[in-house]
Order: sequence, then structure tokens, then C-alpha cells
Amino acid sequence: MRSENKTDKIILGIDPGTNIMGYGLIHIQGSAVKLIHMDIIVLSRISTHPLKLKHIFEQTTVVINKYGPDEVALEAPFFGKNVQSMLKLGRAQGIAMAAALNKNLPVFEYSPRKIKQSITGKGTSSKEQVATMLQRVLSIATMSEKLDATDALAVALCHHFQNKVGSGIEQKKYSSWKSFVTENSAKVSGL
Amino acid sequence: MRSENKTDKIILGIDPGTNIMGYGLIHIQGSAVKLIHMDIIVLSRISTHPLKLKHIFEQTTVVINKYGPDEVALEAPFFGKNVQSMLKLGRAQGIAMAAALNKNLPVFEYSPRKIKQSITGKGTSSKEQVATMLQRVLSIATMSEKLDATDALAVALCHHFQNKVGSGIEQKKYSSWKSFVTENSAKVSGL
Repeated sequence: MRSENKTDKIILGIDPGTNIMGYGLIHIQGSAVKLIHMDIIVLSRISTHPLKLKHIFEQTTVVINKYGPDEVALEAPFFGKNVQSMLKLGRAQGIAMAAALNKNLPVFEYSPRKIKQSITGKGTSSKEQVATMLQRVLSIATMSEKLDATDALAVALCHHFQNKVGSGIEQKKYSSWKSFVTENSAKVSGL
Repeated sequence: MRSENKTDKIILGIDPGTNIMGYGLIHIQGSAVKLIHMDIIVLSRISTHPLKLKHIFEQTTVVINKYGPDEVALEAPFFGKNVQSMLKLGRAQGIAMAAALNKNLPVFEYSPRKIKQSITGKGTSSKEQVATMLQRVLSIATMSEKLDATDALAVALCHHFQNKVGSGIEQKKYSSWKSFVTENSAKVSGL
């Protein structure tokens, strides 16, 4: 794990899904926010659900090992069309979370509406509006056309903004899951 | 990992849930099937969903490290009352699966109906009927009153029965997830 200094950290954003998993990493250095990398992991060609889950766990672990993030933020919709798709989505989310927990990284989750609100100021913004804001904030010349990667980048940035508006002292405590659990064993909420 | 010999192996059965997680371990030695241990992990006192997931991952890992199972079988309902509860259940299942995948153990899943069918010959059996059969097969003098532990033991035994009726040669290949994936990258189904 990198520096505990809140002004120098890497945030990994993940948009878990059962067909495509998007991920994006940003580097916070003082007041500067830089894009490190964004990409998608394609799962649609993997024939069975358990093999997809295995792939999500392995690839999330690969990304964590490669970029050494300090915190992980997930895009987590809480509503869906039917129980079947929500069970599958829940498993994908759980697997991605477990890969982070396994590395003792703190995990935060945000609803799609909250992410849009945080990035553009409006919970009903289009994906294009979110992408435009990301380009501006992160000084990206050409935006990736992989929308799931953009979504993942958005949740990473949303988490960063969340830290900024929240109490810095409170947030800093959660630099590892272990300390998070120790300090909040019975009372924490809103994670 | 223990012996690759199919006639000597440990199966871990898990009944994942967001309030109680049941688990049960059986030891297969030739034609003998013995109970190793069965218990529950209580999650209802943990205040937040992420902390519950963390606890599931940690405790499943503890159980795996302690008993060194060769295979993991999950009770996995595919239908539920509403999307919210299925999302939470999916996460719990995903986390338990990830703990097994992280140890490179093969994971199998069975529906509650399939488990009852396998243990008692009838998919609509009561929990008491399943418990009575478990007692008989595993020569347990006094059955645990922890029903979630009983359910977990049932899925472990169901998996054992599944191996017995299936092709022994086919099943033996899946002694590790790695070999399973390698050998079945594009065609496997029914897991």
C-alpha cells in the first residue's frame, strides 16, 4: 500500500457487470487529479457464469496488483429489472468487492444517480455529459468510447469528490479495511 | 491441497445468506462418508452490509484454511421475493465463491430443490426429512439444531452423491479450478 497521506493516493473505480466490467484509475496528488488508466474486461465471450466470476476475481486482482490503489469505489445500482439479473449482478459486485477486501483495501459504493450528481451536479445527466465533465476535470484529449470504462472512471472521481466535501479527518481513518472495521464495528453506515 | 484421489477428499458445503451463513464439511474415504464439522456464522449482529460481506470472506477463508477442503458446494436459490434481497444474496454468494476461488478450489452450485431431491429422493421434502437422512448417512447421534448448518451439510452430501452418479473420470478432472478452466474453457456447462 502507498502513502497514507490523503493528498497522494490512487483510487480504483469499478463498474461491475456480467458481460463487461469497466475499470478506471485516478491519481490524486494535492489538488491535481490525473487519469492513470481506464479499460474494460470483456466477459461476454466466457460461456458460463461461474467462469465469468472467476475471471472477474482474477482480473480485478491483476489490476490491483499492477496499479496498487489505496481505495476502491464501485458503481452499484440497487434496482433492476428482475430477480435473476439482480442475483447475477450481486454476484459480480460481491466478487469484485472480495478481490479488494482480499488485498485489505477499503470499498465504497455509489448509486449511478449519486455518481452523475457528483460529477455533473445533476442526477439525471446523460452519459455524454458525464464523459464531457470527466474529459475536462482529468484533461483527457480524446475520451475512450468504452462507456463502461467511462462509468468506472466516473465512480472513482465521485469517490474523490466525496472525500473532498466530507470531513478529511474522518475519511483518513478508513485507509485500510482493518482500521475501518476496528473503528466502526457497530455504528458505521452510509458506506 | 490434499490427495487427488477421488476416494479421499473433503467437501465443504456452504449455505450463504446475509444474516446467517451455514457451513458443513464431510470427509469421503472410499465408500465411507464422515461428518467433520458443521456450524453457522452469525452475521445479523453486524450492522452494515459491506461489513457482513467482509466477514463472510474472512470466515470462509478461515474455514478453508482450517479444514483444507478439496471442493466447495454452494446452496444457491435462483429465485427470491424481490430484486433487493436477491442483490444482497447474490453478493453473499459471490463473496463465498470468491473465497474458494482465491484458494483455487472448484466451486459447484445446487438449487435447494436439487439438494432435497439428491438427499431424500424428493425435491419437496421438509427440512426435518433432510435432517433425518443426513443423520442416517453420516451416522450422527444428535443432529445440530442449527438449520442453516444442516442445509450446508446437505449441499456437501448432494455434491458427493452427484460425483458418484456422474462419470468418475469426468469429475476427477475438476480437482482444481485451474485445470477445470483449462480443460473446459469454451464448452463447459451445468456447473
